[in-house]
Amino acid sequence: MTQSEKAIKLHEEWNGKINTTPKCKVRSREDLAIAYTPGVAEPCKAIAENNDDAYKYTIKANTVAVVSDGSAVLGLGNIGAHAAMPVMEGKAVLFKEFGGINAFPICLDTQDTEEIIRTVMNIAPAFGGINLEDISAPRCFEIETRLKELLDIPVFHDDQHGTAIVVLAGIINALKVVNKEKENCRIIVNGAGSAGIAISRLLLRYGFPDVILCDKSGILSRKSENLNWMQKEMMEITNLSEKEGSLADAFAGADIFVGVSAPGIVTEEMVTSMNQDAILFAMANPVPEIMPDLAKKAGARIVGTGRSDFPNQVNNVVAFPGIFKGALEGRASQITEEMKLAAAIAIASLVPEEKLSEDNIMPEAFDPQVADVVSAAVKAHIHD
Amino acid sequence: MTQSEKAIKLHEEWNGKINTTPKCKVRSREDLAIAYTPGVAEPCKAIAENNDDAYKYTIKANTVAVVSDGSAVLGLGNIGAHAAMPVMEGKAVLFKEFGGINAFPICLDTQDTEEIIRTVMNIAPAFGGINLEDISAPRCFEIETRLKELLDIPVFHDDQHGTAIVVLAGIINALKVVNKEKENCRIIVNGAGSAGIAISRLLLRYGFPDVILCDKSGILSRKSENLNWMQKEMMEITNLSEKEGSLADAFAGADIFVGVSAPGIVTEEMVTSMNQDAILFAMANPVPEIMPDLAKKAGARIVGTGRSDFPNQVNNVVAFPGIFKGALEGRASQITEEMKLAAAIAIASLVPEEKLSEDNIMPEAFDPQVADVVSAAVKAHIHD
Repeated sequence: MTQSEKAIKLHEEWNGKINTTPKCKVRSREDLAIAYTPGVAEPCKAIAENNDDAYKYTIKANTVAVVSDGSAVLGLGNIGAHAAMPVMEGKAVLFKEFGGINAFPICLDTQDTEEIIRTVMNIAPAFGGINLEDISAPRCFEIETRLKELLDIPVFHDDQHGTAIVVLAGIINALKVVNKEKENCRIIVNGAGSAGIAISRLLLRYGFPDVILCDKSGILSRKSENLNWMQKEMMEITNLSEKEGSLADAFAGADIFVGVSAPGIVTEEMVTSMNQDAILFAMANPVPEIMPDLAKKAGARIVGTGRSDFPNQVNNVVAFPGIFKGALEGRASQITEEMKLAAAIAIASLVPEEKLSEDNIMPEAFDPQVADVVSAAVKAHIHD
Repeated sequence: MTQSEKAIKLHEEWNGKINTTPKCKVRSREDLAIAYTPGVAEPCKAIAENNDDAYKYTIKANTVAVVSDGSAVLGLGNIGAHAAMPVMEGKAVLFKEFGGINAFPICLDTQDTEEIIRTVMNIAPAFGGINLEDISAPRCFEIETRLKELLDIPVFHDDQHGTAIVVLAGIINALKVVNKEKENCRIIVNGAGSAGIAISRLLLRYGFPDVILCDKSGILSRKSENLNWMQKEMMEITNLSEKEGSLADAFAGADIFVGVSAPGIVTEEMVTSMNQDAILFAMANPVPEIMPDLAKKAGARIVGTGRSDFPNQVNNVVAFPGIFKGALEGRASQITEEMKLAAAIAIASLVPEEKLSEDNIMPEAFDPQVADVVSAAVKAHIHD
């Protein structure tokens, strides 16, 4: 049986990947009188007096909504709310398995920005955090920004920030292996959607002097046409030397390439034109921008992909469970840039120096300490 | 420790009464590749082609949203979305424990009718049914009616229909005990909110010739002032003889009294003025309209209340789990009047004739066969 056949068969057997299970049993009239009426009136009254008590008496303290409108699901595109459900249920499974966090899929039968914002606002009382997922750019930027302003619980678009955090963690470790300093590195990010933009922002925040953002049309600069409002905003802080040209032009002399774009678009020539000890994150899924063996043959020293069958898998699962765990435990009202940087540094630190190598820059996703280490780092930066 | 103290202590220990738990384990890269990316793309693609496959591959087949705006919670009134959470979590527990159905609390941070309707529409893809709860009248009528029109999954306001179904079940059995026919019974329903109106409707549908609806102002008739639109609508089908007067006037010569109103408002004199073998359902919570011992002393033959410490408890938990179980298993798009009547008759049938008595007209809530019997009855009437 192929993996696809196995996936469809098991999804039918599961018939949904999560259950809701009572924490309290109701086996007698007395149980019922405590967990439900009349006893339940007591926590209700306490919360009515002080909304903050919701964290004490309800699931809010440890429950995240996995919110999607199904507009940009995996590599499948705009497949809508119903079809997005298996992904959001899967994400809810990962929240619980990796972070011990309850999560519930909220798949929205609307792709209108204002409707999405209002709906998430309206359902927020049950949740301690909002994980946005697979919402297309540039709508995702406005939805996240507005919800962060309007809600007093953490709102985090994982396709943006989870990816950015794990890429930064990988780059931190890759630089140790090749013995380069961030201050001297030239970076290309190819793909100017939600992930590419968030990656660029976090790399700049970490201290890289500049990032060249590229897309299908080549290098993005202030002179580029057809930029959306967020890409225009990015032109204020990237490509400071106002470089123009093709993707190949961007590669010449670069130290680091980060691809969140399309299969096979990076050639061996491009890699060969990079600086010595080149680092490539070729994360197009399921087929990378360039296959690791080709990239290495062309001179790359370190190659990471999104795939588990090559070394250095860039996998968000090492980030979001610990980030939400830390934010929820520390009752953070937002996930700030400082918390994201702290998470990236913590993830990088999970590979001990003596084990760092060209083929081992990322921590093992199934290492049970990952979420706790990330959570502790995030918590320590809540009040920055 | 009092029951209240115990309830608050346990709610703090539980810190939320439900968990989300994975049905599939993710312990290896291979597990991850099946439950999440890339394998998850297969069920996504299937659903994108045929939305109906959501019932095959996602939680939709067996998951209900417990939706409230916190505007009419228990006896507590308008306490808002956060404070309503313990009740809705409790309801989710009952769905699972009594019906084997997954349920998740959706507490809405808005009390605007249009916003509520839109929000429920937007989040519907994850759910196979919508249980509305503790929404104040008359908004609840419009919200339910509109959602039933707009959604292709069952929408059921339990405060209305669950209560009506269980009351009808009790009346069916009470009439057997006192050996009266529905055609000859005069009925008073006191309380003209969501429960009182739904009870009146279902009793008429079952075949009682008339119902006199009362509220604080006494008997409601076409001449009554300050009726809301739904109460006006009810005047078309109740009080056919256009009776006027006080609640005491309504009692004189009545066979059945159903109270969903306020503690202590029924006097012994009122009960004494009823016909022989009078039946009273005094369901104000936690203190009934009249205490059972007083009612019996005044001549009542059968008394039911909402309380578990008196005989004949009218408890929705014998209805809604089985009703949703039947509707979900049978893929009903609505819960129709026929399904409600079938549920009431099934609930009544759970007390075998030889065990029927003045103090035993309701089935035992913890009898494990209740939900299955109700579910089977509901399923049998899906295509009526």
